[in-house]
Amino acid sequence: MSLTDAQRAEIAAHAQETSSTRRPTVPALEAMLYEPQEVLDHGFLRVIDYMGDDSAIVQAARVSYGRGTRKVSEDAGLIRYLMRHRHSSPFEMCEMKFHVKLPIFVARQWIRHRMASVNEYSARYSILDSEFYIPAPDHMAAQSAVNRQGRGDVLAPDDAAAVMDILRDDAIRTYRNYETMLSTEEDGYGLARELARINLTVNTYTQWYWKIDLHNLMHFLALRLDPHAQYEIRVYAEAMLKILHAWVPQTAAAFEDYRRGAVTFSAGMLKIVRRMLAGEQVEQAGSGLSKREWDEMMAVLKG
Amino acid sequence: MSLTDAQRAEIAAHAQETSSTRRPTVPALEAMLYEPQEVLDHGFLRVIDYMGDDSAIVQAARVSYGRGTRKVSEDAGLIRYLMRHRHSSPFEMCEMKFHVKLPIFVARQWIRHRMASVNEYSARYSILDSEFYIPAPDHMAAQSAVNRQGRGDVLAPDDAAAVMDILRDDAIRTYRNYETMLSTEEDGYGLARELARINLTVNTYTQWYWKIDLHNLMHFLALRLDPHAQYEIRVYAEAMLKILHAWVPQTAAAFEDYRRGAVTFSAGMLKIVRRMLAGEQVEQAGSGLSKREWDEMMAVLKG
Amino acid sequence: MSLTDAQRAEIAAHAQETSSTRRPTVPALEAMLYEPQEVLDHGFLRVIDYMGDDSAIVQAARVSYGRGTRKVSEDAGLIRYLMRHRHSSPFEMCEMKFHVKLPIFVARQWIRHRMASVNEYSARYSILDSEFYIPAPDHMAAQSAVNRQGRGDVLAPDDAAAVMDILRDDAIRTYRNYETMLSTEEDGYGLARELARINLTVNTYTQWYWKIDLHNLMHFLALRLDPHAQYEIRVYAEAMLKILHAWVPQTAAAFEDYRRGAVTFSAGMLKIVRRMLAGEQVEQAGSGLSKREWDEMMAVLKG
Amino acid sequence: MSLTDAQRAEIAAHAQETSSTRRPTVPALEAMLYEPQEVLDHGFLRVIDYMGDDSAIVQAARVSYGRGTRKVSEDAGLIRYLMRHRHSSPFEMCEMKFHVKLPIFVARQWIRHRMASVNEYSARYSILDSEFYIPAPDHMAAQSAVNRQGRGDVLAPDDAAAVMDILRDDAIRTYRNYETMLSTEEDGYGLARELARINLTVNTYTQWYWKIDLHNLMHFLALRLDPHAQYEIRVYAEAMLKILHAWVPQTAAAFEDYRRGAVTFSAGMLKIVRRMLAGEQVEQAGSGLSKREWDEMMAVLKG
Repeated sequence: MSLTDAQRAEIAAHAQETSSTRRPTVPALEAMLYEPQEVLDHGFLRVIDYMGDDSAIVQAARVSYGRGTRKVSEDAGLIRYLMRHRHSSPFEMCEMKFHVKLPIFVARQWIRHRMASVNEYSARYSILDSEFYIPAPDHMAAQSAVNRQGRGDVLAPDDAAAVMDILRDDAIRTYRNYETMLSTEEDGYGLARELARINLTVNTYTQWYWKIDLHNLMHFLALRLDPHAQYEIRVYAEAMLKILHAWVPQTAAAFEDYRRGAVTFSAGMLKIVRRMLAGEQVEQAGSGLSKREWDEMMAVLKG
Repeated sequence: MSLTDAQRAEIAAHAQETSSTRRPTVPALEAMLYEPQEVLDHGFLRVIDYMGDDSAIVQAARVSYGRGTRKVSEDAGLIRYLMRHRHSSPFEMCEMKFHVKLPIFVARQWIRHRMASVNEYSARYSILDSEFYIPAPDHMAAQSAVNRQGRGDVLAPDDAAAVMDILRDDAIRTYRNYETMLSTEEDGYGLARELARINLTVNTYTQWYWKIDLHNLMHFLALRLDPHAQYEIRVYAEAMLKILHAWVPQTAAAFEDYRRGAVTFSAGMLKIVRRMLAGEQVEQAGSGLSKREWDEMMAVLKG
Repeated sequence: MSLTDAQRAEIAAHAQETSSTRRPTVPALEAMLYEPQEVLDHGFLRVIDYMGDDSAIVQAARVSYGRGTRKVSEDAGLIRYLMRHRHSSPFEMCEMKFHVKLPIFVARQWIRHRMASVNEYSARYSILDSEFYIPAPDHMAAQSAVNRQGRGDVLAPDDAAAVMDILRDDAIRTYRNYETMLSTEEDGYGLARELARINLTVNTYTQWYWKIDLHNLMHFLALRLDPHAQYEIRVYAEAMLKILHAWVPQTAAAFEDYRRGAVTFSAGMLKIVRRMLAGEQVEQAGSGLSKREWDEMMAVLKG
Repeated sequence: MSLTDAQRAEIAAHAQETSSTRRPTVPALEAMLYEPQEVLDHGFLRVIDYMGDDSAIVQAARVSYGRGTRKVSEDAGLIRYLMRHRHSSPFEMCEMKFHVKLPIFVARQWIRHRMASVNEYSARYSILDSEFYIPAPDHMAAQSAVNRQGRGDVLAPDDAAAVMDILRDDAIRTYRNYETMLSTEEDGYGLARELARINLTVNTYTQWYWKIDLHNLMHFLALRLDPHAQYEIRVYAEAMLKILHAWVPQTAAAFEDYRRGAVTFSAGMLKIVRRMLAGEQVEQAGSGLSKREWDEMMAVLKG
């Protein structure tokens, strides 16, 4: 991770200030606050602020006057109920703000989640650092033969090394030219920042502040933890998932059960499962499902 | 305000819990936390939680690593700049959660602001209290003669008293019938809650948890503090405005200057102001403005 | 349904105007355009405008230059794929605008769907008609004993009639008092419209224009067609479902299969289904599911 | 513009299909439908579909049953009123869908407008064309000395030519390496598409379908037609503005007057204008405005 000493010092200073508050507070999360988790070769993700906890969800769902006197187990039961029946508004009552450093091509996927707030580092206003993502050899994969938007086998070591060289060389060259175009020295051109940056490759790192409520965060996670999500965004989702468990453990447990590990059966699939449970031998041919759907379902049923 | 002793005790208990946090904390707001402000005859508004402060806005706008070492005056200048140029995303980085008790007809206007999260007390699930809004005599106004959706003069005292009687009698009668329809006693009907409640009048009080970011809160305030907003929602906006000044004083000051006290001149109006400043006598006739626009503009220019 | 002759004439005149367009057009839907479908005792729902069709979804998903030359079956397959994998953006590319007349308490549930545009008839500006919803005897149900927010058995005929009388009497009385408060005649008070209307009951009808994209419409339908949705909003959803089938038949078929008729199994339920399919006898006791979840799952598996 | 003959033929075929519709139809816009307007060196913008017209806004604002019998001048007056008083919901009742080809760095600014629907061409799934934006010499500008995120003077011809060479060479080289990494031929690596594309520069063209309602479109235009918007996105906004005038001429006229040509005066500025109009000589020193605000205001007042 490419944090300068000055940045580390700034983070450390920030982390030392403590205050007394009457707001819901989560000690396990306080311990992680501001601390960057490394992601990819130069990226990171850190929590800047949060609002709410498991109890805040319960309190909002009950529109209550205080924290109430119910047992923890009752609260957990209500959270499971809300998750199972896809109630969204109580989960919207919690909020998290992250500082993320990520490659531009990951940022482009990420921003598709519109129900969030973003402040991105501006390359019109400032100069980007010379940092770009190069996949590690064990993630340098061939195009999948079966999935048009997926990866297949990892490249042979020599090929992986050759590809890494290409990516690194091009990133360095385009960045040097970016610097040359910006430079107001004799051999530079003094080009406007907003133009010079168009020469950078999409694996260049950018960074942003990103704020999202818990409902939408879980929606993001459900999509981006999926094995079909691109690896380079999935690793950010995995870093967030750890934070989720520290922040709202009951909600995170319900999320694992009812979202992440859950599977939706269509009306057609459900009929087949019922026939199977009744002891019938069902084949794809007479199932009413396409070959693809049949295979997807059987993979799920076999676990 | 109709808080029961049990509710007051619950609030007081909640307010006593304090924790240590490393998050941005605003002492002036902590002092107001959970405490209900009375609004209208039975309503209230209280802050349940908040995220961020003036510095958090600046920090997000700069995508910075820590709180930085700039002077307070520089931060205030940046906040003013962001407000003047209608930057919205840094203000979205702060969040506030309210608990509000309000008449249904006010809730219906309020909910038109979609960029917020709501958990409302459910009259399908629970039984509403016997509380309804009756305007005080000095707010019991006649239909405006000039504004189709506004109020004119206050009613004569006798008329105001008669109207209050009508409103109170009808609210009481419909509520008693609501109870009768719900009752499972011998003289009741055991009707489903979701049906019995359809007999209630729209001045019945409901309550909700409402969470909104600072950008959207200021948009709400700009619209609902306006003299053309209905009095009964304006008083809630005024209660929030006090909270805004305690929470983010620099942002609140910029809001007063660039939003609340600001006026937008159309291209056509601007031309006239320029002619006036050049010493020309301009009349409505040759102004290109309609009578209505001319009057609106002159009212603004005279202050 | 309470359409005046003047309103019917206005609708008929509007419906007769035809134009030539190069936009995607759906003849089956054109035939229904503007025509009110009756819902409840005085409500209606009618389509005012629409954008897109099944092909438009496919075209957007492919970011294509024209309608393409693929077979209808390929398009249907892509639509099923998009629905199964919860792709939302191609479905957002179609849009529908409705004019709806509905009781206020239904409007209050409906408006919780924030991803839509609304223009409601203003009771601050205009005078509401004397129309209120009274449930028919076969929908006049007792409070459910098992579901805190549901209905149980239908009331006995005498009780239903008595409740209908209460609802009707109160609605008429509050409406008459609304008129008296508004009236500028000698026996009236000339009260401002925005105040007089607070005396109306929440079964009073209002109306609005409501515009929503196809993705969010299906989300609305998935929630509001559910047997747990209140009957009075479900009937509007059912009227929309008919329109959906006329408008985008392939999408509607996929919706029935993958959303409306689909069931989500949690990680815990899935394990049990796998054990059952492997021939094991599983009991609730050792299942890891709560009694409630077990019952819900068994109900689904038995169909 | 880089449309292939096949794409032109597909567009032409699509444009020839006409249908009869009862929906609001705008002949001036029908004439432009599907036709690409060229933007930048390889980009374009074309209207794919639309919903509504000026009358539809009026009809929604009035929640009316038909097109009504009012005069065109009354409708225009209402539209001006709605625009002046910042009513947003009636304008949300119209919708437009575009197909846009644009450089990635422009797409990154554009997508910040969240209240819209997008389907982008997927570089995980498909291979991007070899097309990248190179600024023309008269747009090849130096960094502004006064505005950290703006452009100053145009570069000298030799410098501009040198920069163009750098940009072109780097784009071509990174694209060739992209092809090599993708290639499954002997000298290629068969790398996954989702990885190979990370080598492309942000001036590479992408394309998308983009759908937005009229209210949000005008918000986009107000921001992106501004002289401070980057030139490369402003030209797309200008192409849309032409379409706006063809589509909803009354709304477009009101937009020019009340939004694009309008200026907002803060409370502080307003006080000064009042003093000036009263004949007082006001200087920045005693104005209460910062030097920067004062200069901004004087520039506006001088026109």
